[in-house]
Amino acid sequence: MGGDHGPPVVIPAVARAIASLPGDVRFLLHGDEAAIASELARYGGAGGRVEIRHSDSVVAMDEKPAQALRRSKGTSMWNAVEAVREGQASAAVSAGNTGALMAISKLILRMSADLERPALVAGIPTPRGLTTFLDVGANVDCDAERLVEFAIMGEAFHRAAQGVPRPTVGLLNVGSEEMKGHEEVREAHRILRSGAFDLDYRGFVEGDDITRGVVDVIVTDGFTGNVALKAMEGAARFITNELRVALTGDLGATLGAVLARPALRKFRDRMNPPPTAPLLGLNGIVLKCHGGATDRDFTQAIRVAVDLAQSDFAAEIERNLRRLPAALAVNCPAGSDGTVRPTPAAEEPTE
Amino acid sequence: MGGDHGPPVVIPAVARAIASLPGDVRFLLHGDEAAIASELARYGGAGGRVEIRHSDSVVAMDEKPAQALRRSKGTSMWNAVEAVREGQASAAVSAGNTGALMAISKLILRMSADLERPALVAGIPTPRGLTTFLDVGANVDCDAERLVEFAIMGEAFHRAAQGVPRPTVGLLNVGSEEMKGHEEVREAHRILRSGAFDLDYRGFVEGDDITRGVVDVIVTDGFTGNVALKAMEGAARFITNELRVALTGDLGATLGAVLARPALRKFRDRMNPPPTAPLLGLNGIVLKCHGGATDRDFTQAIRVAVDLAQSDFAAEIERNLRRLPAALAVNCPAGSDGTVRPTPAAEEPTE
Repeated sequence: MGGDHGPPVVIPAVARAIASLPGDVRFLLHGDEAAIASELARYGGAGGRVEIRHSDSVVAMDEKPAQALRRSKGTSMWNAVEAVREGQASAAVSAGNTGALMAISKLILRMSADLERPALVAGIPTPRGLTTFLDVGANVDCDAERLVEFAIMGEAFHRAAQGVPRPTVGLLNVGSEEMKGHEEVREAHRILRSGAFDLDYRGFVEGDDITRGVVDVIVTDGFTGNVALKAMEGAARFITNELRVALTGDLGATLGAVLARPALRKFRDRMNPPPTAPLLGLNGIVLKCHGGATDRDFTQAIRVAVDLAQSDFAAEIERNLRRLPAALAVNCPAGSDGTVRPTPAAEEPTE
Repeated sequence: MGGDHGPPVVIPAVARAIASLPGDVRFLLHGDEAAIASELARYGGAGGRVEIRHSDSVVAMDEKPAQALRRSKGTSMWNAVEAVREGQASAAVSAGNTGALMAISKLILRMSADLERPALVAGIPTPRGLTTFLDVGANVDCDAERLVEFAIMGEAFHRAAQGVPRPTVGLLNVGSEEMKGHEEVREAHRILRSGAFDLDYRGFVEGDDITRGVVDVIVTDGFTGNVALKAMEGAARFITNELRVALTGDLGATLGAVLARPALRKFRDRMNPPPTAPLLGLNGIVLKCHGGATDRDFTQAIRVAVDLAQSDFAAEIERNLRRLPAALAVNCPAGSDGTVRPTPAAEEPTE
C-alpha cells in the first residue's frame, strides 16, 4: 500500500519479479484486499505465487513516526514486518513512510546491533559500480563501536547485494595530515585495523572518494552521511540543471543536445542511485524502496530482498558482531563511550 | 613565491590588478628579489606601485606545517604575514602551503575568535551566485560557540566579498523531523535565533541546500564541512567524466558535443568555485589562493583582499563577537562545552 502510488506500482513489480525469479520465491501482499486483487487481476493472478493478507488500515506517507507507531498494529506495514518476525516471510519490502518503517521494524524485530535505530544505506554510483555508503541519517551521534558495527553490516550487505566476494571497507575522514578527524573516527580506525574481524578494512577515505569507487563500503556517522549524501544529490541536480540551461542557450548548443540526446539519457540513467535501502541492524531483513519508486524500481528492490534472504548475510554479521566486545577491550581499554579525549589530533598516529 | 608556479603566476596577476585597481592600492612582494624583479621587468616595472621585500628562504608546498613553522621566520610567507601584523600591509595573499599559512598566521596574528585554527571558507556556486560555506576543514571538533563564531565571521566576509548588504545565514543539519542533529547544532541554533547578534539567521538547512542558494552563508563544523565539500567536488568530477564518456560514445553524440562545445565550456566555467579562501578568525586579513591557481585566479584573490581591506569586515565581526558571552549565558546557562547531552534528539524541540 505504500509509496506515492501503492498497488498500481507494487503489483506490476511483483508480476515482473514472478516472471523472472525462480518458482520458489513467493509473495505475501499486505493491504487492502480489494485494491490488491483488482490490480492483480490485470496480471492474470500471478499463478498462485501470491497470497493477499488483508489489513484495514495503512500508515500514511506523511504521518509522524511516533504517531504512526502508536496506532500501527494491524496496518499493512505492521503486518508485513510481523510476518518476518514470525518466519512467514524471509524479507519485507516497503515503499511507505521511512520513519514509521524504521520505528515499527525496530519494535517488532528488535535491533541485533547496539544502535539507536536501524542504519540507512545508500548506493552511490561510481566508475566501478555501486559504493555502499552508511549511515545516511538514522544514527546521528555515533561512537567508535557503532562505526565498527556499520562496517560489519555494510560489508555483509554489499557482498549479498552486489555479489562481491570480499568487499573492501573504508572509514570516512577529513583530509590533511594535521587534522585526522575526531576521536570516534580514530578509535574506530584502530579497532578495524586490528584484524579482529573477518573483513577487508582499507583505512581512511575522504569525501571525494565516495564517488570514486576506491572501496566498496564507506562508513560514517548518520549526521555526516546524511549531509554528504544530500550535498552530492544537490550538486548533481545543480550540475544537470546548469547543463540543461547551457544546452538550450543557442541554436548550435540546442542542435548538439538533440543529437546527443540518447547519450545524455544513458548518462542520466547511469547517475540514478538505486531506489532501495536496507534497514541494517535488525533481526530480520527489511528493505525500504523510495516513495516515488516506479514499478521497475520496486522489482529491483524485490530482487535485492531475494538476494539478501538467500545469502549468509545475517550469519556473517552475527559472527563479526560477536568479535566486537573483545576487539573493543583490546583496542580501547579506556572504553568507547564516544567522548572526545584530550589527545591532540595532530599528534595521534593513525597509520 | 607560493603555489605550483610562483612569480610567473603571481607577477602577471599583480600587473593585471594594478591596471584595474585604484592608484592607492600598492603591493609588497615577498620572496626572491632576482626572480621577482626579472618577472616584473616583463610588465614594465608596475609603475612604482610595487615594492620588493627580499627573503632568502621559502616554505615548500609539501612541507609539514609543524616543520615549516619551526624554520618559518624570515621566509617569504612569514614576512608577508608579519607585514600585516606591523600594519605595513592591509592584507596578505598567498598561494603557498595551506597548513603552513594557517600555522604561521595564527602564530603571528593570533586568533580573534576562540578557535583551534583559522576557519577555512569555500565559495559554492549556486543558481543565485556564490554561497559562503564554512568551516571546510580547519576545526574538526566544534561546540555551539564555535559554530556561532563561524556564522558571525562568514556573514561579515560574505558582505565584504560579495557586496550583499544583509547576507542570510543557515546552520547545516540533517533532515527528518525525528533526528534533528546533535546537541552542538541545536544549541548553536538556539543561540543564533535568540536575536542577540546583528545578522539575519534563517535556521537549519540541509545538505542539498548548499548548492541551492537558499541562504548566503552556511555554517557547519570542519569535519562535516570538509566531507561535504569534497563529496560535492567528487560528485561534480564523476558527473563531468561520465558526461564526457557519454558524449564520445557514438557519432551522433560526438557531433552533438562538438556543436555544443561553447555552451559546455561556459557550463564548465560556471561550475568552477572561486580559487580564494579567507582564513577567518585572525587579527588581520590573510587569503589563501589555490596552489594550482592561474594568474587570473590570483588577480581575483587580490581583488577579494582589497574588498576585505576596504570594508568594515573586522569591526563587524568584533561587534558581534562581543555579544557572544552574554548570548551564551542566556541561551545555554549550563555551559557550551561541546559535550553531547543525554537529551534524546527526537524529543528536543528545535523550532
